[in-house]
Amino acid sequence: MDEPEVKPVSTGRRPRKQLRTPNPEVRERLLAAANKLIREQGFPALRVEEVAQEAGLSVGTFYLYFEGKDDLYTSLVAQHTAQLRELRKRAHEGGGTVLERMGRAMQLYLDFVEENERGFQYFRRAGSVQTTAGDLMSWVFDQHAQDHLPLFEEAVQGGLIRRVDLELLVQALLASTQHVVGYWLENRDRYSRRDIERFLGELSLAVVAGLAPRKE
Amino acid sequence: MDEPEVKPVSTGRRPRKQLRTPNPEVRERLLAAANKLIREQGFPALRVEEVAQEAGLSVGTFYLYFEGKDDLYTSLVAQHTAQLRELRKRAHEGGGTVLERMGRAMQLYLDFVEENERGFQYFRRAGSVQTTAGDLMSWVFDQHAQDHLPLFEEAVQGGLIRRVDLELLVQALLASTQHVVGYWLENRDRYSRRDIERFLGELSLAVVAGLAPRKE
Repeated sequence: MDEPEVKPVSTGRRPRKQLRTPNPEVRERLLAAANKLIREQGFPALRVEEVAQEAGLSVGTFYLYFEGKDDLYTSLVAQHTAQLRELRKRAHEGGGTVLERMGRAMQLYLDFVEENERGFQYFRRAGSVQTTAGDLMSWVFDQHAQDHLPLFEEAVQGGLIRRVDLELLVQALLASTQHVVGYWLENRDRYSRRDIERFLGELSLAVVAGLAPRKE
Repeated sequence: MDEPEVKPVSTGRRPRKQLRTPNPEVRERLLAAANKLIREQGFPALRVEEVAQEAGLSVGTFYLYFEGKDDLYTSLVAQHTAQLRELRKRAHEGGGTVLERMGRAMQLYLDFVEENERGFQYFRRAGSVQTTAGDLMSWVFDQHAQDHLPLFEEAVQGGLIRRVDLELLVQALLASTQHVVGYWLENRDRYSRRDIERFLGELSLAVVAGLAPRKE
């Protein structure tokens, strides 16, 4: 899945130079360097100079690829979103019932969050930025909703759940999952990953059971 | 309910002068002025000078009561949280079954959000600040959870739902409600308040039904 084009609006900073043929590998190297530094020290302390240095490139090169820190932030969020969607796509291709695929998607989400814990926690709290694709957080939710909606449509068609507003249902479940996972990371002393898996599994099953088609 | 004490940490700005006997009415006037301006123009564009002018006070007086815009933001969030909790407390005192009280609390939340739409949307997207009571957003969730937890405990005791981790359940439902309400405000062309009420009502009932005690 290609990383979608999403840029912050009106940062007041323009690229110093437009690259006629940007090198995707250079961009990738800068993002990888930023990810590494964020894992070590978080995002707020991150400086463009460090990212360039870590990537073995000049600050000037950084600015050929990113307008600034807002643009880097937006690009990292877009990259993570695309990576998670790609993993999820592969998990769905594994087949199985709707509930099995939902269960696998959940495991995968928890794996991904654990691996990118600092980025996830930062993103959850950093606030949103306005982008060319609208509000960044809304955009992320909408991206993920695109993966889940067909699954819920299938659950309705297959008689697993009755028809409710599936778009709102997916948004509600994405929000509760994201929040519970964040709550877990903030309260690791009280909850293990196993507790969270068990709770989220139980909640999903409860929602599905509670939305069972009404008997005629 | 008194507004709880919560202050942003390390804004780098200290009150120019410590008031020995701060006047709660002056503070209230500044908060009211800020609320009025936020309703009109949102928070990002807000300037301390305007808040003082709107309140008919000097900028110097503003800084006797607030360390800066972060502190004002934190105080407004704390004020809104306290107001909502006070309304909820009164609604709960009205009595009725657990489901009736939950339903009333939901109505009241929607009323409150509609009345403070701009503040709500801004808060939802602005990002959190570190305060003396920890992360501001986590603090807000924990405040509201304090009202909901006893209700869910009662639902367990009364045999309406089986015992699951009620703390996680309340966090999950608060997050999904907040997000769905925000989604509604961003998509008013597609959803009416009635649609959202109906959906949130249906979701709550589904969760309760899905968590019904298992038959022996």
